[in-house]
Amino acid sequence: MYDLIIIGGGPAAVGAGVYAARKKLKTLLITESFGGQSLISDNIENWIGTKTVTGFELAKNFEEHLRAQESLEIKMPEKVTAVREIPCADGKRPCDYEVETDQGNRYQAKAVIVTAGARRRRLGVPGEDQFDGKGVAFCSTCDAPLFDKKDVVVIGAGNAGLEAVRDCLPYASKIYLLVRGESIKGDAQTLEEIKKSPKVKIIYLAEALEIIGSAFVSGLKYLDKKDNSTKELKLEGVFVEIGAIPNSDFLGDLVRKNEFNAVFVDKFQRTSLPGIWAAGDVSDFPYRQNNISAGDAIKAVLD
Amino acid sequence: MYDLIIIGGGPAAVGAGVYAARKKLKTLLITESFGGQSLISDNIENWIGTKTVTGFELAKNFEEHLRAQESLEIKMPEKVTAVREIPCADGKRPCDYEVETDQGNRYQAKAVIVTAGARRRRLGVPGEDQFDGKGVAFCSTCDAPLFDKKDVVVIGAGNAGLEAVRDCLPYASKIYLLVRGESIKGDAQTLEEIKKSPKVKIIYLAEALEIIGSAFVSGLKYLDKKDNSTKELKLEGVFVEIGAIPNSDFLGDLVRKNEFNAVFVDKFQRTSLPGIWAAGDVSDFPYRQNNISAGDAIKAVLD
Repeated sequence: MYDLIIIGGGPAAVGAGVYAARKKLKTLLITESFGGQSLISDNIENWIGTKTVTGFELAKNFEEHLRAQESLEIKMPEKVTAVREIPCADGKRPCDYEVETDQGNRYQAKAVIVTAGARRRRLGVPGEDQFDGKGVAFCSTCDAPLFDKKDVVVIGAGNAGLEAVRDCLPYASKIYLLVRGESIKGDAQTLEEIKKSPKVKIIYLAEALEIIGSAFVSGLKYLDKKDNSTKELKLEGVFVEIGAIPNSDFLGDLVRKNEFNAVFVDKFQRTSLPGIWAAGDVSDFPYRQNNISAGDAIKAVLD
Repeated sequence: MYDLIIIGGGPAAVGAGVYAARKKLKTLLITESFGGQSLISDNIENWIGTKTVTGFELAKNFEEHLRAQESLEIKMPEKVTAVREIPCADGKRPCDYEVETDQGNRYQAKAVIVTAGARRRRLGVPGEDQFDGKGVAFCSTCDAPLFDKKDVVVIGAGNAGLEAVRDCLPYASKIYLLVRGESIKGDAQTLEEIKKSPKVKIIYLAEALEIIGSAFVSGLKYLDKKDNSTKELKLEGVFVEIGAIPNSDFLGDLVRKNEFNAVFVDKFQRTSLPGIWAAGDVSDFPYRQNNISAGDAIKAVLD
């Protein structure tokens, strides 16, 4: 029986792991890998206190910091497949929890912190994987500065798409916004704001077909649904902003989630079920950044 | 006219500064110094991703990260003395803000993020300053592990005091809890928990008089108010847990504060006045940790 099980290996999990271990909680951390979604970044310039670091280095630093904690046990690589309540003798909540993994192991704990992150929704078109980090980007807050004086396209007509355009405004020379339908779902005020810039061109009824290039991205092919023709944009950056998928399936209906499968949390990171906390990209907090995840996961431990 | 003025130089201010600059907001950061309350720490082991760093090094890293941001202007050392609303022509809020400093300067901005931190309430007894960081500690979450197998005293009968005792339980050999009055104000459940440990001895009606030692703390003299005698405890650690004073005086009545002068914030770090955000130890969030401050300040910028 552990005091605490932490699920995940990104900045939230590491924040929780370090703090839990220093509180001498008997803690088990289960993760498939370390570093979270930043693992593949060539250059992270917004991890506070560190001018620049690669995703690989940051992941290594995370793992070292965790492994320096005596009272922390780590299972890696291991993937959580289910979390269940252990029924109490007296029927009282909060109860204990059982965590099951892909290796057939079952671990029990008095509390669980879910910091399993999210994965970016991808276009699924040729070139997207090949040029990931070589012109294809999934975080405009992180990567807009890399496209200074370059032409870029933002794909996505929700708030994430509009905000990506706004993030690119001070940097990019030209910004295409590719919209699948006839209208934009995102915030009208942000839309007004970006429409004011002569840099921005919105292309409606357009569906991404292929990201092209050699070493780096050089263009985007898309289907113009107005006349069913294939068109091509010359550009150096593609921001894919069509949403994120929280890694919360293993929780089933144990805790309340929003329409996108993100786990509802309050300001102490409590979920709807006492004894389970969540933090980072698996939670419903809308801004997804490494430092936010680390800080919020620490709140969960202290709570 | 700036887009944003950030007040402070600790982890929250640096988080806000880096993110604001990368969004190319025309930003001014005003601070007396860098590093926040950790500046004087010999050894920080809970800054996530960094196994160990001194407060001085962390402050240097913060400053370097900030100074690497092109669109950020820094005024240091300079102390904010007042923040005021600039009346709008049409009477509409949110309006612009004016920030006044001890050097007689007045800066204007469309938005303000208050990350001015807090200072620990001190006992004001001989030895407290002399042994600060040499046995005298103000953060049990941070420093409890430093007192492994040592005798310590916790001064303070609120929740901070009780939680400091709990933080010391896995480490210290003996923990005195010094209480000025006849009863304990903190949470009854935590009190029950710590009373179970044979390590803990609660001394009521006791007032700290002097912290003694040579290079490091070796004892505490206190007034036993039961018989008005002076007594002495032999110990190596003194946790002063009598509260923190948020650095929010310069805000006057501009935003709502709690009974301890901490600024109320919502989950997006908004204060009661649109256009002013707060994060870190100046806010009313109860857990005060470097990573929490950095993460929450980033939320403020993104909001």
